[in-house]
Amino acid sequence: MRGIVYKAQGDMQVEEVADPSIQDPGDAIVKVTKASICGSDLHIYNHGEAFGFECGCRVGHEFVGVVEEVGADVGTVGVGDKVLAPFWISCGSCHFCQKGLQTSCVKGGCFGFQPMFPGGGEGNAEAVQGGQSQYVRVPMAAGTLDRIPESLADDSNDMKTLPLTDVFGTGYHAAKCSNVQGGSNVVVIGDGAVGLCGAQAARALGAETVTVLGHHDDRLQIAKQMGATHVVNTKTSDNAGELVKELSGGVGPDSVIAAISSADSMKWAMDNVQPGGAIGWVGMEVLLGGPEIPWDQAFFGNVTLAGGVAPVKGYLPELWEMLKAGKIDPSPVLTHDLAMDEAASGYEVMASREEGSVKVAISPQS
Amino acid sequence: MRGIVYKAQGDMQVEEVADPSIQDPGDAIVKVTKASICGSDLHIYNHGEAFGFECGCRVGHEFVGVVEEVGADVGTVGVGDKVLAPFWISCGSCHFCQKGLQTSCVKGGCFGFQPMFPGGGEGNAEAVQGGQSQYVRVPMAAGTLDRIPESLADDSNDMKTLPLTDVFGTGYHAAKCSNVQGGSNVVVIGDGAVGLCGAQAARALGAETVTVLGHHDDRLQIAKQMGATHVVNTKTSDNAGELVKELSGGVGPDSVIAAISSADSMKWAMDNVQPGGAIGWVGMEVLLGGPEIPWDQAFFGNVTLAGGVAPVKGYLPELWEMLKAGKIDPSPVLTHDLAMDEAASGYEVMASREEGSVKVAISPQS
Repeated sequence: MRGIVYKAQGDMQVEEVADPSIQDPGDAIVKVTKASICGSDLHIYNHGEAFGFECGCRVGHEFVGVVEEVGADVGTVGVGDKVLAPFWISCGSCHFCQKGLQTSCVKGGCFGFQPMFPGGGEGNAEAVQGGQSQYVRVPMAAGTLDRIPESLADDSNDMKTLPLTDVFGTGYHAAKCSNVQGGSNVVVIGDGAVGLCGAQAARALGAETVTVLGHHDDRLQIAKQMGATHVVNTKTSDNAGELVKELSGGVGPDSVIAAISSADSMKWAMDNVQPGGAIGWVGMEVLLGGPEIPWDQAFFGNVTLAGGVAPVKGYLPELWEMLKAGKIDPSPVLTHDLAMDEAASGYEVMASREEGSVKVAISPQS
Repeated sequence: MRGIVYKAQGDMQVEEVADPSIQDPGDAIVKVTKASICGSDLHIYNHGEAFGFECGCRVGHEFVGVVEEVGADVGTVGVGDKVLAPFWISCGSCHFCQKGLQTSCVKGGCFGFQPMFPGGGEGNAEAVQGGQSQYVRVPMAAGTLDRIPESLADDSNDMKTLPLTDVFGTGYHAAKCSNVQGGSNVVVIGDGAVGLCGAQAARALGAETVTVLGHHDDRLQIAKQMGATHVVNTKTSDNAGELVKELSGGVGPDSVIAAISSADSMKWAMDNVQPGGAIGWVGMEVLLGGPEIPWDQAFFGNVTLAGGVAPVKGYLPELWEMLKAGKIDPSPVLTHDLAMDEAASGYEVMASREEGSVKVAISPQS
């Protein structure tokens, strides 16, 4: 079969790779109908060595597909079921899985990040290969996989369901962590796919205003399409602070979704969030150099910082309901859909922030 | 009248000071029946110049008493009412007062901290004098003062109600910020008055285990008296990490109350809190040099950081109910009660951490 392989920094290629097989009775094999490239894959593409990636590592952790084969112990899904795999593998039964924090599963790991979660051995989640391929082995399938609701199971809905694997769940996590509620004034920093999804999540949770700050007019247009009430291109305008203050009656936003979580954007969030407000941070930028907290501001302002890697699996029951009810539709973040032969070029599209691009889907079977 | 005055670093004295008077129709004058010295007063005592204090500044922000005189616009309390003043002055009507974050009141300020909240002028909260005195002017009395429930209004209950002005409210804020719930495993770092109150607050909120880490066996005994299920003197034992892991079934505490919030204690909290857990930080230590956040741990562990200066006024309705029902009794933190003549020596008692001392009350009328 074919899959995307990391060759070197700035070089991903589609190659012939080994077919996956059941290695443990808890495994399933999924035939991938649609996959996508994530901002965190771009971190690998741009800084692979910093994360321990070597030539030959397979990548990808966002995919939906059809169960092709199941191990004897899976039980929860069967051959032919349309399924979604959150990017994080989880056993479903440990303390953390039970409390809805599947990203801290004691046996967990992440598809397509082997160098960061090396592990190995039979049934070990950490040894799994990337999902940007035609088939993928899913360890602990009973815990990891979610059956896609019947009304959304047709392949024609893949562009709607696929973002729930990671990017929408991550935006939703940021919205929850930043305590978005009915009537909230919300700012989203970042017009990438997580920011756009965060904006839509905030509206779905009842936010009154959602202002997206970004650097790309084309993406800010998509933000509006996805429910943002206001957008500011902070490259060409310096009124973001004034605008969000005005929108909140002079006190600043209740919630800031720090989609990128760079030091600069976190500082902006601290400087502008309302006293008693919360910053929901979910961006991997913090791993490359996190912000210093201005503790005096945080102390007198009672600012909450909450976030981290999104436990998507725990959110799926409510996200399926929202998707079925038409309250959310994250498909506009998928601006491209590439056949397998062209899939590697999706990295260039995303890395160059090509006009009109946000996020690239891949159709591995075509 | 007499009040405690900052003379120089390490030198507080009782002096004759000006009688307060109504300066604004919203003011009240309170005859103080009991006041107390706070850990933040010790910061003034030890580092006064760092906070801008000069010889002659009056101190004190924890007091209960009887209304002696009211301005024409007060309305909510009258002469003879037994009242409690939270340490933070608040108008009661602005956006932040209405949402229960009175410490961010747009007109607010803090008793006894004039150099940090200089302000001035008629009715300005920032110009108020300290509460460690026989009488005190309370600006915006309608917003600031809470009438003490009748069953607790007798002076004999002052030692129970007085800690609600600040120290118990602060411990309670830390417990709420660290998301203590029924069945939680909680660690409290610090055996000062805030830590001890935090432990009691956590139990009152339903915590299953509350482990207090401190440096003083005598204070840890009081922690037990106030509801701590476990205590560790971390000066003489190095098993705190193991113990709290064991108590939580191997996963670490759900909640850490960082009563001191020093860089070291915040690091311990980050290293030991359970993934998905929360750290409630309320200590002024962060203002003298806050911790660096280990962002990778916070990211993969989804650790929430919440806290700051406690909006005591907002918590009072529930705290009065708890106090009336006997669910809390913070009086054990008040280990001393000094007459006005001896009151300044209370600073030495607290600063030296004299055996058997936690917190000093003052009886200004005796």
